[in-house]
Amino acid sequence: MAFDKQLPKRSEDISGWYNALMLQAELAEYGPAKGTMILRPYGYAIWELIQKKLDGMFKANGVENAYFPIFIPESLLHKEKSHLEGFSPELAVVTIGGGEELAEKLIVRPTSETIMYASYAKWVKSWRDLPIMINQWNNAVRWEKRTYLFLRTTEFLWQEGHTAHASHEEAIKTQEWAMGAYAKLFTDTYALPGYIGRKSRSETFAGADSTMTYETLMPGGKALQSSTSHDLGQNFAKAFDVKFQSREDKTEYAWQTSWGLSTRSMGGLFMVHGDDKGLRLPPELAPHQVVILPIRADDKLNEFVEKVKADLMNADIRVKVDDRDGESLGFKINKWELKGVPIRMEIGAKELASGQIKLIRRDNGEAMMVAADKLLETIKDWLIKIQANLYKEAGEALAAHTHSSDNYADFKQQMDSTKGFIKAKWCGNVACEDSIKAETTASTRCKTDGTEKGACIYCGAPESEEWYFAQSY
Amino acid sequence: MAFDKQLPKRSEDISGWYNALMLQAELAEYGPAKGTMILRPYGYAIWELIQKKLDGMFKANGVENAYFPIFIPESLLHKEKSHLEGFSPELAVVTIGGGEELAEKLIVRPTSETIMYASYAKWVKSWRDLPIMINQWNNAVRWEKRTYLFLRTTEFLWQEGHTAHASHEEAIKTQEWAMGAYAKLFTDTYALPGYIGRKSRSETFAGADSTMTYETLMPGGKALQSSTSHDLGQNFAKAFDVKFQSREDKTEYAWQTSWGLSTRSMGGLFMVHGDDKGLRLPPELAPHQVVILPIRADDKLNEFVEKVKADLMNADIRVKVDDRDGESLGFKINKWELKGVPIRMEIGAKELASGQIKLIRRDNGEAMMVAADKLLETIKDWLIKIQANLYKEAGEALAAHTHSSDNYADFKQQMDSTKGFIKAKWCGNVACEDSIKAETTASTRCKTDGTEKGACIYCGAPESEEWYFAQSY
Repeated sequence: MAFDKQLPKRSEDISGWYNALMLQAELAEYGPAKGTMILRPYGYAIWELIQKKLDGMFKANGVENAYFPIFIPESLLHKEKSHLEGFSPELAVVTIGGGEELAEKLIVRPTSETIMYASYAKWVKSWRDLPIMINQWNNAVRWEKRTYLFLRTTEFLWQEGHTAHASHEEAIKTQEWAMGAYAKLFTDTYALPGYIGRKSRSETFAGADSTMTYETLMPGGKALQSSTSHDLGQNFAKAFDVKFQSREDKTEYAWQTSWGLSTRSMGGLFMVHGDDKGLRLPPELAPHQVVILPIRADDKLNEFVEKVKADLMNADIRVKVDDRDGESLGFKINKWELKGVPIRMEIGAKELASGQIKLIRRDNGEAMMVAADKLLETIKDWLIKIQANLYKEAGEALAAHTHSSDNYADFKQQMDSTKGFIKAKWCGNVACEDSIKAETTASTRCKTDGTEKGACIYCGAPESEEWYFAQSY
Repeated sequence: MAFDKQLPKRSEDISGWYNALMLQAELAEYGPAKGTMILRPYGYAIWELIQKKLDGMFKANGVENAYFPIFIPESLLHKEKSHLEGFSPELAVVTIGGGEELAEKLIVRPTSETIMYASYAKWVKSWRDLPIMINQWNNAVRWEKRTYLFLRTTEFLWQEGHTAHASHEEAIKTQEWAMGAYAKLFTDTYALPGYIGRKSRSETFAGADSTMTYETLMPGGKALQSSTSHDLGQNFAKAFDVKFQSREDKTEYAWQTSWGLSTRSMGGLFMVHGDDKGLRLPPELAPHQVVILPIRADDKLNEFVEKVKADLMNADIRVKVDDRDGESLGFKINKWELKGVPIRMEIGAKELASGQIKLIRRDNGEAMMVAADKLLETIKDWLIKIQANLYKEAGEALAAHTHSSDNYADFKQQMDSTKGFIKAKWCGNVACEDSIKAETTASTRCKTDGTEKGACIYCGAPESEEWYFAQSY
């Protein structure tokens, strides 16, 4: 237990603060193999809440879950060339199985397009077999040299949705629907505002025709790609022979999409909402929405606390009573502030006698004495307010760190100082994109929804479209 | 789609029937890497129902979920010698990562004792940190030369619970609680009766002091080990240094348990309840509990079907309307019989006009005309009856294939003919156990709860305890 250790200040040392917080709040720790992460129960409980929300949205749209093997024969991965090139440097490879050198190496899945679509080719015969809408909740591996808990790990947990359709229009609708589901999740559940748009060619997923992204702002001004949704066109269908007889009795290749959200997004959640005291969890994702701290408990107090707990649980509020002995009240307050529980309730004999219970909000520190018969009502109200307030604060930070620029000197100066998102015109030419990146470390994050065109901020070419630029995590 | 292909007869060719059924019912298929399995949506939906039930029981007992890395450095696995010896022949090994030969090989987890307890050693300081009750839902890999869908696959999905306690008594209680949860799951949900007891020394989990098992009977008379729960004593605690300060302020090693249930158990579910027409799913684990087949649907019929569907869904009954065109009614009947949906509803204009709807039970073929306003009530009643009937039938088969023997010639003859479980006395000597296995291919499955002692069926040694023997899957 490390709740009495000092956290580095978030405003002074964001990396030090983040690393220490992940460990001290018992969200995660480093696994023994380089690059791997242990998701501790408190961190995993947040992932379970995320899964439940997202899985519900998927199933309501007709998506079914399935499971495909983690081992992909090397030859399968070689079928789609640009996909292979994109993933080659990041692969973990099994060469020994059951005590013997394998004839064909097995790749630990970095993503499952290749293995899934080899099956889709067998399942799809007629337009009647389409669409296929399948999702997997699983683990995937992409080799990393440096670990950053949640944000950069060799193994991560995620969901990957993979669909096949009879028309390009339907595939694009599905790509957009998936991004819409992510946007709703980030907005309503993570309380994380962000920018949605299409990626540039160089930032598009290996093997896709287009990639949509949800980009959020991290403290320090960098952007985090929090989820992506891809239009795969017919690229994989051609490589894996996913063909069907159309209504018009022609043989056609299927149109496909894939889309994913990983434990990486949780890093953004912790980064954005945290403060110098630790986490601030939005109520929708808090494993404990309310923590009750009984002070010098006796039978009468315990009885009252049990009743409050039961009332809250009946109202579907997630509540934790911390009656662990051997820890002072001050220690417990620090612990639960660090762990980001939205509402804290402190109650002793005095409060019980007066009928006035102390509630404290984690997001803004507001404290209030509440009559016992108003507890449930107040807590319900506060949970909604805390969720809204975290979203509002993050939105203000995003707005404050989003600028427009039509002058490359200003652009550079901005990326050198407070960073953030810059809306600027870009000609679409990869040479300009590469030069900007080399000179400012900022890359295109996605297209804005702006329609006005103008001169490219780098080369001055006219009729250039507007893009979001930022440095990337 | 293969619903029009002939299934081999279950009574004549159990393996052929099983393999064909797994594929035709769209539960699973073979993955491209040897030994791996693809869990298709219909099969995965059953696993999700199992997960939901079991996860609820775990959480009600204070178990928390977490996630540990899939890659275990080779050196960690070497810390507990008998554990290493048990798993060595079955390992898949990553030797290349990020394009480079690894300095230390990484083992793809066959089970997570070693990696988890290395963390437990860091987390546990005082008796106040105990018990630790953690479960993981994940994938694990144990190399197999021959694949048998669900029953024997190189990669499988499972849950593995891992606990640490301050006393041996508490650990044993947890081992027994976990086996009790499995027994409840098999009885109430899988509708699979079985025998519970302790394994012999040679059949005990590698590294454990004792293993409890739930043994079920497969058609053909073999036994399937459907789940296990282990008392690990202090073996791993000593190897991984999981120590704590006791209430008496002494340094002690923790007492540990682990327990697991995998997708293997689904193979038993399909084997036991199936018949010549295909699967018979118990309602508790049926992705669709009711399938509605509209006959020559028009607007009026569709409206009625939608209303019935909504009524069933409101009553938390899982219902599927099969309105796919291009398939005859006969084809659809075969399809849903093969897929084992407990109740089928057939309805056309004639039935709608008469107000009498046809319901058919999958388990016993019973058909009945039911008045529209009695549909919900009848279906609720039938779902309970079908669940109970499948359990009853399986119980009768188990009783019919369980014998007692105190004569080795009879024992051998029985294992040669109808097989099944034989209760017999055994002296506990591994030499007798090995000889019996070599001569009959039957092994000890678990201790019976019989207390009467007698002569060992092999060597005649007196005071021998009673054990279940059977051939094993």
